[in-house]
Amino acid sequence: MAKLKGNLLYGQSGGPTSVINASAYGVIQEALKQKDYIDKVVVMKHGIRGALNEDLIFVDDISKDDIELLKHTPGSAFGSVRFKLPDFREDDTNYLRLLYIFRKYNIRYFLYNGGNDSMDTCSKIADYMKQVDYECYIIGVPKTIDNDLPFTDHTPGYGSAAKYVANTLMEISYDMLAYPNGKVTIVEIMGRHAGWLTASSAIANVSGFGPDLIYLPEVPFSIEKFKKQVSDVYKMKKQCLVAVSEGIQNEDGIFISSSSGLRDAFGHFQLGGVASKLATTVSADLGIPSRSVEFGSTQRAASHIQSLTDVNEAIAAGSGAVKAALAKKTNLMVVMNRTSNDPYTIEYRLHDLRSCANTEKKMPKSMINKTGNGVTKEYIDYVLPLIQGENTPRFENGIQQFSKIRK
Amino acid sequence: MAKLKGNLLYGQSGGPTSVINASAYGVIQEALKQKDYIDKVVVMKHGIRGALNEDLIFVDDISKDDIELLKHTPGSAFGSVRFKLPDFREDDTNYLRLLYIFRKYNIRYFLYNGGNDSMDTCSKIADYMKQVDYECYIIGVPKTIDNDLPFTDHTPGYGSAAKYVANTLMEISYDMLAYPNGKVTIVEIMGRHAGWLTASSAIANVSGFGPDLIYLPEVPFSIEKFKKQVSDVYKMKKQCLVAVSEGIQNEDGIFISSSSGLRDAFGHFQLGGVASKLATTVSADLGIPSRSVEFGSTQRAASHIQSLTDVNEAIAAGSGAVKAALAKKTNLMVVMNRTSNDPYTIEYRLHDLRSCANTEKKMPKSMINKTGNGVTKEYIDYVLPLIQGENTPRFENGIQQFSKIRK
Repeated sequence: MAKLKGNLLYGQSGGPTSVINASAYGVIQEALKQKDYIDKVVVMKHGIRGALNEDLIFVDDISKDDIELLKHTPGSAFGSVRFKLPDFREDDTNYLRLLYIFRKYNIRYFLYNGGNDSMDTCSKIADYMKQVDYECYIIGVPKTIDNDLPFTDHTPGYGSAAKYVANTLMEISYDMLAYPNGKVTIVEIMGRHAGWLTASSAIANVSGFGPDLIYLPEVPFSIEKFKKQVSDVYKMKKQCLVAVSEGIQNEDGIFISSSSGLRDAFGHFQLGGVASKLATTVSADLGIPSRSVEFGSTQRAASHIQSLTDVNEAIAAGSGAVKAALAKKTNLMVVMNRTSNDPYTIEYRLHDLRSCANTEKKMPKSMINKTGNGVTKEYIDYVLPLIQGENTPRFENGIQQFSKIRK
Repeated sequence: MAKLKGNLLYGQSGGPTSVINASAYGVIQEALKQKDYIDKVVVMKHGIRGALNEDLIFVDDISKDDIELLKHTPGSAFGSVRFKLPDFREDDTNYLRLLYIFRKYNIRYFLYNGGNDSMDTCSKIADYMKQVDYECYIIGVPKTIDNDLPFTDHTPGYGSAAKYVANTLMEISYDMLAYPNGKVTIVEIMGRHAGWLTASSAIANVSGFGPDLIYLPEVPFSIEKFKKQVSDVYKMKKQCLVAVSEGIQNEDGIFISSSSGLRDAFGHFQLGGVASKLATTVSADLGIPSRSVEFGSTQRAASHIQSLTDVNEAIAAGSGAVKAALAKKTNLMVVMNRTSNDPYTIEYRLHDLRSCANTEKKMPKSMINKTGNGVTKEYIDYVLPLIQGENTPRFENGIQQFSKIRK
């Protein structure tokens, strides 16, 4: 197979994870090695928008230390974007612009790092480049803390978020033991459509300190059942720790977090999450003191407690994508296939991009308990290998060091 | 000085910190060494309530590993309590019971680990034992994430909470850079009366990624000024990160978190913190997307990111208290005096217990910026030494190991 020499273009898209920059590291380190194929490694700022705006970073201009620090940097070190390309058969404006940029910079390898929507973008670009007969090899690099991409055992980003959630729920649970008469604490966890991250709170229970009740978007949520279950736990333990997905819905598929008409004294509609609503309900209807916790973006950004397994897999997914592109594979996403659970081993494969896009992998019934308020051993066996090992941060002066590419 | 031989009683009280158990470790290790003075080391379950209920743990019954793990265990490993003793001149019921227990177990050394209120309890017991002429040496061991105890440079517990807040705010700040058009993120931080912990969010800015605005309880809060300041930052940066103390009050001293009459569709009063209220205001009045973050007890329980300096000082405060009691000092609290800032050195001293109780040390004006929405270099110089070093958790199976004394 004749070698195709050109430049490689990489970008990040969608919600960050604490290890998406580890994938960038994997891409960059592998690409820099491949001098026979790749002249320049170029990164789009804010994903595909950076390509359209010719807002590009040349890796040669980044310091070695800033590249090393990508393994410890949360967020999107190169900027992210939420941008859906239209069908090029209906509107090819952006595609023509991309083709111009690809030609101008002799882009022959294109890697896009993201979740479902980003894989859609990536696939559309691959289709277009094929249609206009521009030789370019296009590979998707998966990432999402939601773990909801299909055809892969799990996604880079999930293990670290799960490790943060599990360890933090342990801490909250242990802290709650301080007083004999406790509270109901309701912790809201990310994941709009799939319960994978909320489920990871159950790992805490392996240690003996974790949530009593777990509510996932896969199970229709009944406020009456919830109140009964909280009340039962509280009667027995004089405290109750609840992990709830931001995405729980009632039987009619309506999000519990949807506005229920809350207004403040100024007539403003009240923002606020599920946990805060449920805490109000527990206090008001059950007369039990209750409080809510909402970590926000810390869940996806907690670089200080990354899973080393996750970091290494994120790097391997990045370098694997480069290798695949150089081998003239295209319109594919890197996926992970678990070949053994004990010892844990995975192999990297490739899967048709289009079928990875726009599909959400939910938790299977076999991983959710019968009562619908917890997980099964099958889930714990599945998730435990993903949180193993620690990627110790580089602390200086007591705080983490992050890559300063965009400063 | 004649040696007094007897038993030592230790207890924890008030809100936990992530290193209060490190002080317990310091007490226990030092006391076990002092065989000439101490026969048995006894711990009250749930502080003074454990003494009153004769609910005691003998350290000889605790495994060595569970003692070692105290250095990594958040919460109150022996249980805490919020219990205010009355003046014994008005009601000596509890004191008589304590005297009975002290005599029964030959308690000659009594150490109480807590914040302002606990020091009040500790001092009252010392006064009573003196009055009834029961020979017993009583020392307070300070702890609080609020850092609001007087007569000490800082308190064990503060450095670790500050390290958690600083690093987490860095992560949130970096994560916010992902999109060019961002949000206003408002993070609520503990500290009802003093802004020390909220101020620690400013450490993040040392790295270049941190909060834009910081609101402390020491500065009267004006909603109009707040809106103007947020709006100004947002205009310039297209995003804004705000750290706000749960204890901010308006000019009349009324907590902003007090119920403003929020009710939901069922007529319940809405719980909810300051951050959620301010986020609602930003969205509604400024038309800028906004969200709130509330870490809850994680701030005081984040054992996975303890400051090693803090852990070591907590241990030293515990062992120092034992040494002071054996030297027949009584009715005193261990305090820390900073003798140099660069290199950072402290010395341990003792201070009259009663004057340490019931007084809150607020942030001095010199540590707050002129605009009242941030800190000065004096504060940063003060706080940085306290977050140095990492007390790496003992991970097994990807999760932390905690002492299981109370399981």
